[in-house]
Amino acid sequence: MPLNLLVFFNELCDLAQEETLSRFRKPIDITNKLSDGFDPVTQADKAAEQVIRNRILERFSDHGVLGEEFGASNSGAEYQWIIDPIDGTKAFISGLPTWGALIGLYKAGKPYAGIMHQPFTGERYVCDGDISVLHHQNEERTLTTSQVEKVSDAILMTTSPALFSKDEYASYLNVEVACKLPRYGTDCYAYCLLASGHVDLVIEAGLNAYDIAALIPIVERAGGIFTNWRGDSPAKGGQVLVAANEKLHAEALELLSC
Amino acid sequence: MPLNLLVFFNELCDLAQEETLSRFRKPIDITNKLSDGFDPVTQADKAAEQVIRNRILERFSDHGVLGEEFGASNSGAEYQWIIDPIDGTKAFISGLPTWGALIGLYKAGKPYAGIMHQPFTGERYVCDGDISVLHHQNEERTLTTSQVEKVSDAILMTTSPALFSKDEYASYLNVEVACKLPRYGTDCYAYCLLASGHVDLVIEAGLNAYDIAALIPIVERAGGIFTNWRGDSPAKGGQVLVAANEKLHAEALELLSC
Repeated sequence: MPLNLLVFFNELCDLAQEETLSRFRKPIDITNKLSDGFDPVTQADKAAEQVIRNRILERFSDHGVLGEEFGASNSGAEYQWIIDPIDGTKAFISGLPTWGALIGLYKAGKPYAGIMHQPFTGERYVCDGDISVLHHQNEERTLTTSQVEKVSDAILMTTSPALFSKDEYASYLNVEVACKLPRYGTDCYAYCLLASGHVDLVIEAGLNAYDIAALIPIVERAGGIFTNWRGDSPAKGGQVLVAANEKLHAEALELLSC
Repeated sequence: MPLNLLVFFNELCDLAQEETLSRFRKPIDITNKLSDGFDPVTQADKAAEQVIRNRILERFSDHGVLGEEFGASNSGAEYQWIIDPIDGTKAFISGLPTWGALIGLYKAGKPYAGIMHQPFTGERYVCDGDISVLHHQNEERTLTTSQVEKVSDAILMTTSPALFSKDEYASYLNVEVACKLPRYGTDCYAYCLLASGHVDLVIEAGLNAYDIAALIPIVERAGGIFTNWRGDSPAKGGQVLVAANEKLHAEALELLSC
């Protein structure tokens, strides 16, 4: 694929930002996707996904695209772009700057590259298939995960304990009570803080591929371990366990299995 | 008090920022204040409080100062400056931009003015005793709370359900299950989002005066209602119930009392 991926990721994020940041902290129509519960979607989510999809298919008509709001196209293609235009819509409608645009690229079914863009803070966490970097205020920093190897020394993040089933919550709690500090409410931002070395564990469940496709390469190329709760590939979503390094991952995986 | 409060608040925040933002997301010594549990304090907290205290007492030697890290001085004075140099130290050490410097001013025991400064995002939420405004990227916006009057339509924030006692958690849950959307993990940022109209309810417990002194005037002068769980003055800390308007406050207060 003769392409400067970073340039193209940034172009997509610039387009999406025009649809999201302009509507952040402004009055906005919110639709609830659930009849029982609350899963919001806004005009910002839809407009941002549409501009990203259009630009990808304009440039690569034979690539596949999978997005949260508008589903799949070219689903058999070797290259698949996987989009969550606003990961953390609940944070978005609450005014919190912990949401992000996620754009991942899978090659032959495997996570290859991705970007998380937080337009309000101006942070771009990106992996081009080789290394992971943070671009912020004209500075660039290569990302490296932490050396924290024990759960008892670890900072653990999850978006909300309410997102686990009863059994999942019991497993998760084995890790939460053993860790140094649990934090809630972070969406995609948590994975980027893990890639940056500030956070040591992220444990979630009930995820879709578009929630993590961009984040897997960002974490892995920074040195982290990204699996499901059985230690297998997380590429299709579901339960995820993300750790800063192998030793920490092994201990957390054992606790989750208790 | 012949003083441009906004100018002085900004001067104090600029001094504190030199001690906090420079250490944010960098390796830092963390001390645990608890023998059972984890309540971190860093060199950033201590250095920031010290520069704020020094500047206040240099300018107003007869005023009182109460800070989280270095206690009280001139505690009988009419004007009391109440400081939390980093509200949300757990967020700070996790790399999350939801902590803030809090500086409040009490006059004759009553909350009068205050500022919350988030240096990473550059947001300054401030009340000069008259109106509440947000300064961000050379723009100034007057803050007004939301018109959401029913708990079932409300976004509710709290820092962590783990901060409640068992009885408090049962009371809190009456509101959480009735609201539209609960969010965790926000510290002082939640109160500023409420003052801005993005969030409708904040419910917390176990707070100290320095956790809320700056936030009370910011919320009240934006139209919000800030009390304890009995509907009385929250100025000394403890349990707090903050609502966007009177009707919403009355319904939430009743649910908390069930």
